[in-house]
Amino acid sequence: MLELRLVQGSLLKKVLEAIRELVTDANFDCSATGFSLQAMDSSHVALVALLLRSEGFEHYRCDRNMSMGMNLQNMAKMLRCAGNDDIITIKADDGSDTVTFMFESPNQDKIADFEMKLMDIDSEHLGIPDSEYQAIVRMPSAEFLRICKDLSTIGDTVIISVTKEGVKFSTAGDIGTANIVCRQNKTVDKPEDATIIEMQEPVSLTFALRYMNSFTKASPLSDQVTISLSSELPVVVEYKIAEMGYIRFYLAPKIEEDEDMKS
Amino acid sequence: MLELRLVQGSLLKKVLEAIRELVTDANFDCSATGFSLQAMDSSHVALVALLLRSEGFEHYRCDRNMSMGMNLQNMAKMLRCAGNDDIITIKADDGSDTVTFMFESPNQDKIADFEMKLMDIDSEHLGIPDSEYQAIVRMPSAEFLRICKDLSTIGDTVIISVTKEGVKFSTAGDIGTANIVCRQNKTVDKPEDATIIEMQEPVSLTFALRYMNSFTKASPLSDQVTISLSSELPVVVEYKIAEMGYIRFYLAPKIEEDEDMKS
Amino acid sequence: MLELRLVQGSLLKKVLEAIRELVTDANFDCSATGFSLQAMDSSHVALVALLLRSEGFEHYRCDRNMSMGMNLQNMAKMLRCAGNDDIITIKADDGSDTVTFMFESPNQDKIADFEMKLMDIDSEHLGIPDSEYQAIVRMPSAEFLRICKDLSTIGDTVIISVTKEGVKFSTAGDIGTANIVCRQNKTVDKPEDATIIEMQEPVSLTFALRYMNSFTKASPLSDQVTISLSSELPVVVEYKIAEMGYIRFYLAPKIEEDEDMKS
Repeated sequence: MLELRLVQGSLLKKVLEAIRELVTDANFDCSATGFSLQAMDSSHVALVALLLRSEGFEHYRCDRNMSMGMNLQNMAKMLRCAGNDDIITIKADDGSDTVTFMFESPNQDKIADFEMKLMDIDSEHLGIPDSEYQAIVRMPSAEFLRICKDLSTIGDTVIISVTKEGVKFSTAGDIGTANIVCRQNKTVDKPEDATIIEMQEPVSLTFALRYMNSFTKASPLSDQVTISLSSELPVVVEYKIAEMGYIRFYLAPKIEEDEDMKS
Repeated sequence: MLELRLVQGSLLKKVLEAIRELVTDANFDCSATGFSLQAMDSSHVALVALLLRSEGFEHYRCDRNMSMGMNLQNMAKMLRCAGNDDIITIKADDGSDTVTFMFESPNQDKIADFEMKLMDIDSEHLGIPDSEYQAIVRMPSAEFLRICKDLSTIGDTVIISVTKEGVKFSTAGDIGTANIVCRQNKTVDKPEDATIIEMQEPVSLTFALRYMNSFTKASPLSDQVTISLSSELPVVVEYKIAEMGYIRFYLAPKIEEDEDMKS
Repeated sequence: MLELRLVQGSLLKKVLEAIRELVTDANFDCSATGFSLQAMDSSHVALVALLLRSEGFEHYRCDRNMSMGMNLQNMAKMLRCAGNDDIITIKADDGSDTVTFMFESPNQDKIADFEMKLMDIDSEHLGIPDSEYQAIVRMPSAEFLRICKDLSTIGDTVIISVTKEGVKFSTAGDIGTANIVCRQNKTVDKPEDATIIEMQEPVSLTFALRYMNSFTKASPLSDQVTISLSSELPVVVEYKIAEMGYIRFYLAPKIEEDEDMKS
């Protein structure tokens, strides 16, 4: 028996909007620790990892570990029927082939039950080792979203280059080139406006803008985004989910040699 | 000679937006009593009845009963050219094949005349008897709109079930099922937030969501909607138009036997 | 060497949005006087003339006259990447085949460089003589936009008729006719709400609404629009750009004889 009651139901709505474009079907894993998901995008290029810790739920009952396969489009359709102030409860009986999402309005006037069929999905859980990164950039998520969107009007890939002074996002396309530099800025009125760079050594990596734009769908979850970069590793784009966990996107850099071999 | 001056012209704009999706062409009937319309939707399944009583107009002159056939899309196009604060006057000469909509801005700076050709439309006026209903639900129109819209993402029909405790809206589709219960609630801060159930006996009826969604286009006209249900009768979905009249939609319930015969 | 620094960068964004629908490619001319453009629309019916005087720039360096051919869609794409509060600098080296748009955020945290390829465009500069007009109408630009948009739902052309009392906009189409009269009104609370008519003699001219609608894309640049009319001359639809210059659209009236010859 599974029963997870989340007072701030809008968080779950935002999580689904953040990943439904990237991932079609995925297993949600429930354990005593929390409610989590790890899935590749449909083209097997990017990886998304979600964690909502059990402590973040008002009520968290998970008698035994469960893996529930869901179609994320259908799940998002149902969650969109929850009001932004609704309390959401996820319920499933042991061995059942359905999951129920219950939405309660704040004044308890309106109670909705949406029951969705579960799916059998093959998946292997990748162990993601903790790594040291050459550079970690923390910046306003709205700024990162805007930059990825703007550069997409010019080119298909973004080069992210980090130095002590700041982080530079560059692209090039048929109509010209673009460079956007964000300077480190710790002395801001609101902490969520800060741009903070922790750098071991300068790094410059190239990524497909298409995926970066998908990742920024998670911006409503957090005022800040953290981008962790190393030459030998996939970039990690992380949005913290207040006091509950995170959503992390992993994407391998494009390798120059590959580009050369093509041409 | 007809001359009807409506200070709150936005009401007429909203009326047209409420019915233009459902009805293509219709006769507007003018008499000493008021300005009214009765029309079937284009698939002859739903009926809409509108009444704007003469007392609601600042000036109401209707020398003799007139029936004016209008294309509602064209009429809506013209009314959309009226500002939301404009005074609207409907004018027609006896025997004329046109009607004129005059829009005056509040400060009289801008005066517009839109003249539209009338049409000959065959129509018979149905007498709708006053009936006793097994259950009458009054609820916020925005809530009813939201529920119909949400359920449409899951299924094609809605079962509306009324008990003393509340009203339940249910649907089922390929991806799962949904039930939304609204409890009776008379103790609200604002009267327009109330959900009030008058029940003679429990009732449970099935309707096509497509029509219900069309009816909810009238929501801007009224904060509350009244749904009157009886097993033997079409449902009535009514939006009151402040101090002037109403717009009522009638829709026959789907009969279970029909469903069984199909399968 | 060219370097033009515009503190209110949003002005340049609005200028591009105003003309990019009408003009595909055009030469921007830079001289000591200012930054200007004159171009025919792609169907060679309307003419647009833009002037941004050098005094309106915080910094204006133009060592020698330059003519820079730009694709306005591409330029608009780049300018849309500037924030509304950004300072925009236009830079070009002598003889270079590129132009650079630099966007600085107000707090200097974010600096973007967008480099665009220039084009060779043949163009001849038309001398536009100063003329006397039979009637000049000054009115709120939002009102003029609304009227052109509203009339477009009814017909394809607008007849603009000016008398001492006011200006009348008329159209006719399949579904009917429309007349909108705006009365002269000098006694308004806010000067931008005034409608002022300077008339030497009454005038009535017919124009294609399609172009008028294009011209109204400049409405965000100015609260007021000035329409100058004479029977023998193209109409001038002018939007002043605060303390910097103007954008003017010229359009020849439709001649009745032409219409008759067609039929």
